[in-house]
Amino acid sequence: MDVLAEETDSKLKWLSGFGKDSEGGVTRLLYTKEWVEGQNALKEWMESEGLEARFDEVGNLYGTLKGKNTEETILTGSHVDTVKNGGRFDGAYGVVAGIIALKYLKKHFGEPVRNIEVVSMAEEEGSRFPYSFWGSKNIVGIAKREDVEIIKDFNGVPFVEAMRNAGFDFRDESKGSRKDLKAFVEVHVEQGSVLETEKIDIGVVNNIVGQRRYTIELTGEANHAGTTPMGYRKDAMFAASHMIHEIISMAIEIGDPLVTTVGKVEAVPNIVNVVPGKAIFTIDVRHTDKDAILSFTEKMTARMQEISKDHGVEMNIDLWMDEDPVPMDQRVVNLIEKQCKENGFNYKVMHSGAGHDSQIYAPVVPTAMLFVPSLKGISHNPAEFTEPADLAEGVKALIGALYELGYKE
Amino acid sequence: MDVLAEETDSKLKWLSGFGKDSEGGVTRLLYTKEWVEGQNALKEWMESEGLEARFDEVGNLYGTLKGKNTEETILTGSHVDTVKNGGRFDGAYGVVAGIIALKYLKKHFGEPVRNIEVVSMAEEEGSRFPYSFWGSKNIVGIAKREDVEIIKDFNGVPFVEAMRNAGFDFRDESKGSRKDLKAFVEVHVEQGSVLETEKIDIGVVNNIVGQRRYTIELTGEANHAGTTPMGYRKDAMFAASHMIHEIISMAIEIGDPLVTTVGKVEAVPNIVNVVPGKAIFTIDVRHTDKDAILSFTEKMTARMQEISKDHGVEMNIDLWMDEDPVPMDQRVVNLIEKQCKENGFNYKVMHSGAGHDSQIYAPVVPTAMLFVPSLKGISHNPAEFTEPADLAEGVKALIGALYELGYKE
Repeated sequence: MDVLAEETDSKLKWLSGFGKDSEGGVTRLLYTKEWVEGQNALKEWMESEGLEARFDEVGNLYGTLKGKNTEETILTGSHVDTVKNGGRFDGAYGVVAGIIALKYLKKHFGEPVRNIEVVSMAEEEGSRFPYSFWGSKNIVGIAKREDVEIIKDFNGVPFVEAMRNAGFDFRDESKGSRKDLKAFVEVHVEQGSVLETEKIDIGVVNNIVGQRRYTIELTGEANHAGTTPMGYRKDAMFAASHMIHEIISMAIEIGDPLVTTVGKVEAVPNIVNVVPGKAIFTIDVRHTDKDAILSFTEKMTARMQEISKDHGVEMNIDLWMDEDPVPMDQRVVNLIEKQCKENGFNYKVMHSGAGHDSQIYAPVVPTAMLFVPSLKGISHNPAEFTEPADLAEGVKALIGALYELGYKE
Repeated sequence: MDVLAEETDSKLKWLSGFGKDSEGGVTRLLYTKEWVEGQNALKEWMESEGLEARFDEVGNLYGTLKGKNTEETILTGSHVDTVKNGGRFDGAYGVVAGIIALKYLKKHFGEPVRNIEVVSMAEEEGSRFPYSFWGSKNIVGIAKREDVEIIKDFNGVPFVEAMRNAGFDFRDESKGSRKDLKAFVEVHVEQGSVLETEKIDIGVVNNIVGQRRYTIELTGEANHAGTTPMGYRKDAMFAASHMIHEIISMAIEIGDPLVTTVGKVEAVPNIVNVVPGKAIFTIDVRHTDKDAILSFTEKMTARMQEISKDHGVEMNIDLWMDEDPVPMDQRVVNLIEKQCKENGFNYKVMHSGAGHDSQIYAPVVPTAMLFVPSLKGISHNPAEFTEPADLAEGVKALIGALYELGYKE
């Protein structure tokens, strides 16, 4: 096995030891013992590779390869926290790949023109507290103290208490974003099956999708399944099935990069011999283009209104998430693509259908991402897997990108 | 208010005092304290009206108006048990109407040609133990000791223990059905909205529907809602929505008396941003004609097979209930209809979409039923309601039927 492949894979296994759970997965939630131990171990590793390592106020961990110009920094990395019973790749891969890339660059090219830094970010998943992107939001200065002061974890532990017990505290909000950041490149597992299916090694991400999430509640009339003739019914589930079938058919018709999912469905009272009086379902719509999301969701809600009218059921539409697409920086994307071409990587330019720290950086810092394949697209699960050879390709592409960004005037 | 209306309504209110629950309903489950007190109170009432009252081995309570020929009995009545948090009409009305009818017949016509008896049956609902029709099945000799010896209630109390604590025991199975029964007429609230909607006072039931119940399990692939293009999905909920919409549309097309209900629906893992890997739903199909049930369910399963194939999902079909329709006795139905005509009742001949004790009697004893309207078809709920005037019409129709059956040679 390729040296980089072996090193990346073995370091990921090592890191997964911090938070290994009883169900064969990794549970390393923000500010827990496992998290603290994992971050401290990463700090030691960074130092042993000759990087200058330090925590910021909230617990983001940095390892710096100092450049001639120390006022400019090229940043790479990802998040160290996991979901509950997650895998060993999501987030962790971006941190491990970053450290290995910096070690390689230091060894082969010495001091860069500007700082190159790897970050192991405190939090991205929102799995312990109802708050996501705590790490990256602090780095770019958009985290707000008041947003976490009132939140608690699933055991009732306040966010602030957990943070202080882990040895960290609030960052001074008046400082805003870190001013030295000239670029951010995150490498991550795809969490989808596009690369695997199309037998491509590297995804160069040019856009992170926007998304809208809805909850639809239909109210008809609960009735006895035996004594209520079909003509007397207001069957909320019948109406819901009609809508779900049409919405998803419409999305298939329109095609990539639009995706639409009805993931959660509930019938009320949910009893075999009662006609459902209520049906509740969610819709998740994503696209790389904001206008395309607007145009699809407008058509979708108009059609649902017609269907609810035809079925004689009341409909309530709750749009509870509405996030715009986040384009990556075209200059950084071009530069990465150029590298991939020159180094003969088997790559494709693609969008990300999932959210990542990069979407927090992109409005402030020129940002791009690299993807490597995920086996069957599985993520947030102990079965998450990427072949060591694919991990190595990602590290190599990252090395190329960081060289371009960090070693050229 | 009409005397019969007032008496029926006030006796139903009185009976609902046995088992009045904290949520404003009636909970009078088999062999509980409330049930024992209710049956004992009914026995006293029967005796105070000059009926000969007695319990059988399992706790069915009878009140007999003795006839000249004591070897033949015309039976009426219904069940005294309720569902949890039920109403005051289901079952109870048939018992109360029977006692009032016998009192009326005794007062106005004296001794009948043969015995006329009212029964307050021990159990029909299956709400305490996973067993239904314990009362009627004992009367017609098809209850089996081994079927209840292993069952327990939701608190772990064994059936046999509950029965013995209430003062009852098994009936000798070798005795078979009661031999003296010449007819059974049950009066019941409709539990549907046909009579109310069509402004009809009395339903003369000529058939109890057969029913099939299925659980359908579809297996596709759970995937990330953002990173899985539409073309790469095997969305079990999309397939389920297609099936549900088509099945119910087919049933509407075919029309009365076919009814088809998808009451229970589950998506797995049921998370907003995960394409459902599994979808599970139930189908309840009812019709008065067995061949019609067979022909519909055949068409239905064939269509589901096509749809599952088109969607690339695996389907498992579990048929876990298959009950034939139970026709009522045509002679008794005709006789009741004749009475309704002669007495100027506003009636219609109809089927029952719900199960009743009558379906247990019908294969052994000439049986028919009478329905009165249910407000909005609500049943098994504290909001169950029938107007006192409608209750009285039912009692009058029952009096007419019992006179025909019990006083004529």
